[in-house]
Amino acid sequence: VNKITMPSANRLAEPRAYDRIRTQIMDLETENIAELAVRAQSLSDVITLWYGEGDLVTPDFIRDAAKASLDAGDTFYVPDMRGLPALTEALSAYLTALHGRDIPVVRSTITPGGMQAVFLALELLVDRGDNVVYVEPQWPNIRHAIHVVGGEPRPVALRYENDDWRLDLDELFARCDARTKAIMFSTPSNPLGWTASQEELRALIEFSRRTGIWIISDELYNRLSFTAERAPSVLQLAEDEDLVLSVNGFSKAWAMTGWRLGWLTHPKSVAAPLSAMTQYINSGSAAFVQAGGLAAITQGEAFVTQVRERCRAGVDTAYDALSGVNSVVLPAKPKGGMYVTFALAGEADSRAACTRILEEARVGLAPGWLFGAASNAFLRMCVCRDTAQIAEASRRIAGALGA
Amino acid sequence: VNKITMPSANRLAEPRAYDRIRTQIMDLETENIAELAVRAQSLSDVITLWYGEGDLVTPDFIRDAAKASLDAGDTFYVPDMRGLPALTEALSAYLTALHGRDIPVVRSTITPGGMQAVFLALELLVDRGDNVVYVEPQWPNIRHAIHVVGGEPRPVALRYENDDWRLDLDELFARCDARTKAIMFSTPSNPLGWTASQEELRALIEFSRRTGIWIISDELYNRLSFTAERAPSVLQLAEDEDLVLSVNGFSKAWAMTGWRLGWLTHPKSVAAPLSAMTQYINSGSAAFVQAGGLAAITQGEAFVTQVRERCRAGVDTAYDALSGVNSVVLPAKPKGGMYVTFALAGEADSRAACTRILEEARVGLAPGWLFGAASNAFLRMCVCRDTAQIAEASRRIAGALGA
Repeated sequence: VNKITMPSANRLAEPRAYDRIRTQIMDLETENIAELAVRAQSLSDVITLWYGEGDLVTPDFIRDAAKASLDAGDTFYVPDMRGLPALTEALSAYLTALHGRDIPVVRSTITPGGMQAVFLALELLVDRGDNVVYVEPQWPNIRHAIHVVGGEPRPVALRYENDDWRLDLDELFARCDARTKAIMFSTPSNPLGWTASQEELRALIEFSRRTGIWIISDELYNRLSFTAERAPSVLQLAEDEDLVLSVNGFSKAWAMTGWRLGWLTHPKSVAAPLSAMTQYINSGSAAFVQAGGLAAITQGEAFVTQVRERCRAGVDTAYDALSGVNSVVLPAKPKGGMYVTFALAGEADSRAACTRILEEARVGLAPGWLFGAASNAFLRMCVCRDTAQIAEASRRIAGALGA
Repeated sequence: VNKITMPSANRLAEPRAYDRIRTQIMDLETENIAELAVRAQSLSDVITLWYGEGDLVTPDFIRDAAKASLDAGDTFYVPDMRGLPALTEALSAYLTALHGRDIPVVRSTITPGGMQAVFLALELLVDRGDNVVYVEPQWPNIRHAIHVVGGEPRPVALRYENDDWRLDLDELFARCDARTKAIMFSTPSNPLGWTASQEELRALIEFSRRTGIWIISDELYNRLSFTAERAPSVLQLAEDEDLVLSVNGFSKAWAMTGWRLGWLTHPKSVAAPLSAMTQYINSGSAAFVQAGGLAAITQGEAFVTQVRERCRAGVDTAYDALSGVNSVVLPAKPKGGMYVTFALAGEADSRAACTRILEEARVGLAPGWLFGAASNAFLRMCVCRDTAQIAEASRRIAGALGA
């Protein structure tokens, strides 16, 4: 769910049908790095690190489980569209053990991808004229999804102070009003790796209890924490009926980006509405895809550790190479996730910085402006890669910047 | 996309979170045959024909293609979220050949299931306060999906006259007003097998050209026509920029219900908005699932013929057994699809009729009230089954009705 680019078809000269669609869909932007990608095609030997995707193929034990399910003839509808019972039960056990709090089966709904989990969360809550206050920098799909469901995306920027990013909760709460339906953030965050502390999450839930405003926590990178087995989660703190939604999926920690399998954890009492929405929006996920997810969640701990250590090594490698470069503005190391972000001193425009690094260093990075104004000057490098590749990319960047 | 039942979680006694969701989602009903299914569990030897799903496992050549894709390591994001290029190109060639009119690649978007294709079509067009006029009897998911996107579902009933169902186009058009965004129907229809003629489709498109109202044609059963290689389709008639959307998928004709793979064919000028919606709603379908779809569409013609003949034989078998039963009201044979529908003379309540047939004949049928008031008295039997099973089910029904 983390792809930030997508080739989009050109609008035609006579868009008759286009003129007759919803205004909010007409407004929808597909921001992408198509310009950079086109430029990259004319260059040789580019290391592309702009996508939010690691370089590991999904491991054999997960692919084998899907293949075995296909062999067994599991090609029919899954009777419970909210998920294969074996998977939702395993997920409940997994979440309960991970977060040290009973999270029953009824509280999670399987979705065709983390993006669909975000979308279901928003479609569940947001009506025309409502707004969602969200933390920036933020994966751009979030604000566009808010726009699709007819809401107003209302960003609150993390503050860059003392070489690190900090959330101002008072500012966040002050941006909420009577039409605010939810506060949304990702932790560890994409692109920054900024991670909400347990105290911040507790304050958010207490605010929710006072105001009736929902908390939507995007926890796709929850297992890719560099300080513990998992980053702090709203699921550790929320009671069954707190207004808390946790978005998650198999993409990042289990190297299953292309599988399109995620889940939404929610209060018990919205299980029935989400069941209905699942039926009328997507009608569930394939049994054999879910069989892969089941293998991931029940046999995947060693692999999750491998992915986490790959990200940590990537961060360390990039920091080793870039921290000595004068013109590089390098924040404190991320607390999780699969990215390193940095800026070029004196260059506020990430588009120009990306172009320069692409052309001079032959390294493809994602420009921070995609993630909102707060990260206008920053560049995102995916480091869930072979360490040698990150070392080479970092060396090239350092070299191009005249270190 | 044709499952009409789904176990839904119970609403709790203290639905605090439930009280804070969108009103339209609170209103959402999950109609199902849970009552019947529970009753069936206490009976032995029930033949369940209530689901809209055949009895064939997806054929080997399709499953093998998905497995080969998994073996090849196709577990990463598909760069073009609107579909694997090989699949969208094959689909364009397939539709062009099938409908005798150039339908370029840009006009189809791959979706995670036919249901999601319906949903994207509605989310593209319908705003709060808009309405969608649709033909009943109709697969119930359609009216609920209209409700989810905030529209008013506005049914127009087919008329049962001279033992057959007839569409009154004047009545349909008269139901449209300034807030009507689309006219929707399925052809061949679920549950009836009623099939729009080319003349009716032409009249609908001409009405659309005059009024700016979209036509959404659900063509999931398009290849399961008993009168030609395919039922008449809007795609034969529509120009590139006509306000026409055709919903389709792999579920029915290729026995891939559980794969969750469909497509939406649309005007060229909405390809870009649908590209954006795909990114922000579902972020595309798995490459290895699409590999299965590619095998289906390029190597599946013999299998499609097999499925069609299975349905035709099922219809003939049921009609042979039921046409002599006095108390059975049997319409003219369906022109396509995978269902036989009939009523019991003097019994207007399909729920009571279903219960009676379940208990006395041990055959599980879907009650027509699920599909709208027009089919209140009718029962739906899925006949895409082994002929011997349909023969046995029909014999039991005839026996129970005292033939």
